[in-house]
Amino acid sequence: MTHRAVVLLSGGLDSSTCLAWGIREGLECHALSFDYGQRQLQELNAARAIAKALGASSHRVLRFDLRAIGGSALTDDIEVPKHRTIGEIGQGIPITYVPARNTIFLSYALALAEVIGADRLLIGVNALDYSGYPDCRPEFIAAFESMANLGSRFVQTPEARLQILTPLIAMTKAEIVRLARSLGVPIELTFSCYDPSESGEPCGQCDACLLRAKGLEEA
Amino acid sequence: MTHRAVVLLSGGLDSSTCLAWGIREGLECHALSFDYGQRQLQELNAARAIAKALGASSHRVLRFDLRAIGGSALTDDIEVPKHRTIGEIGQGIPITYVPARNTIFLSYALALAEVIGADRLLIGVNALDYSGYPDCRPEFIAAFESMANLGSRFVQTPEARLQILTPLIAMTKAEIVRLARSLGVPIELTFSCYDPSESGEPCGQCDACLLRAKGLEEA
Repeated sequence: MTHRAVVLLSGGLDSSTCLAWGIREGLECHALSFDYGQRQLQELNAARAIAKALGASSHRVLRFDLRAIGGSALTDDIEVPKHRTIGEIGQGIPITYVPARNTIFLSYALALAEVIGADRLLIGVNALDYSGYPDCRPEFIAAFESMANLGSRFVQTPEARLQILTPLIAMTKAEIVRLARSLGVPIELTFSCYDPSESGEPCGQCDACLLRAKGLEEA
Repeated sequence: MTHRAVVLLSGGLDSSTCLAWGIREGLECHALSFDYGQRQLQELNAARAIAKALGASSHRVLRFDLRAIGGSALTDDIEVPKHRTIGEIGQGIPITYVPARNTIFLSYALALAEVIGADRLLIGVNALDYSGYPDCRPEFIAAFESMANLGSRFVQTPEARLQILTPLIAMTKAEIVRLARSLGVPIELTFSCYDPSESGEPCGQCDACLLRAKGLEEA
């Protein structure tokens, strides 16, 4: 039996690799992206291109406005931190953390899974080459999975639980790049920068750019 | 120390009572409502009136569109079931269940709590006089609380966990009505109907209307 999956797709390297992985695993993959008031929309264009290039079974973009809540450099008028090297990236939860973002994203994915009859959620979180976000850790994912199975239609079918798959969670960026290449992900179409120029060029100095560059170099 | 709380406020009897309870308990209550594509907006007007009447410290209305996901009589072109008596209300999960709605609502409440520094969430769920929704049960609320503490800034402060308060969870509708009266909730301003007329009159026959009428009668 083919399992149906909802795949969170930001258009970055990690989520694109996650989608390609799901398709290779034989899942029927329905991509879900969010227009949530992020500063830049290049990643949504990248998500559309990637969903098409990889052959997702469907692709939805949901709109809502996290700017009404604020509290992050990605949704507020707060400067995105820049660094010259990876070593300069700070400890603790960075200002680019968007409060409860993955919780909100996974909640929408759960709703969609209930409606289309999917029993798998795929999310490209990674706890190694960037562990500053509390909502990228395996403990959080496991807790969300338990909660989702209690608070949705899945409570009626304990024999067919919803599972959250995180194929990248323990990989380094270099390993993700190698996996992406082996799966034929068009890496040039993906977009990771937190703070691109007005013409859409990556800044090269935010955490996302530095980690992507390190991954590509090491791979 | 006064605790700050985010209170989910639909404008119905239960959430309004919950807000009044929070204020009486000495919490600094910030109300949060959602314009999520529900069929009727009377409840949002009721929420605004209630927040003002009860003296919430703030009131925000967040917009998003659950119609893009669908799957419920409250957000889709599916007829809201009508009954003549409480006894006709069916078993199992009703069609008025909105997939993952409370999960999504609580996720936004968590995000707002992180931003405004609240450590309490209040939600007027009730598992007794209406247990058909999986996301109104204590097991779900406990699981959400665990997940929220793992996937947010609260992970940094285990000595100051986020707590979800559900003062109504084990009450009958009659008990809720009595509590509402004792707290001075202007019950006439609250609005519970799932399917009002175009002029905004409650239908009197949906599950919400029948349960409200039963509660008022018994109290």
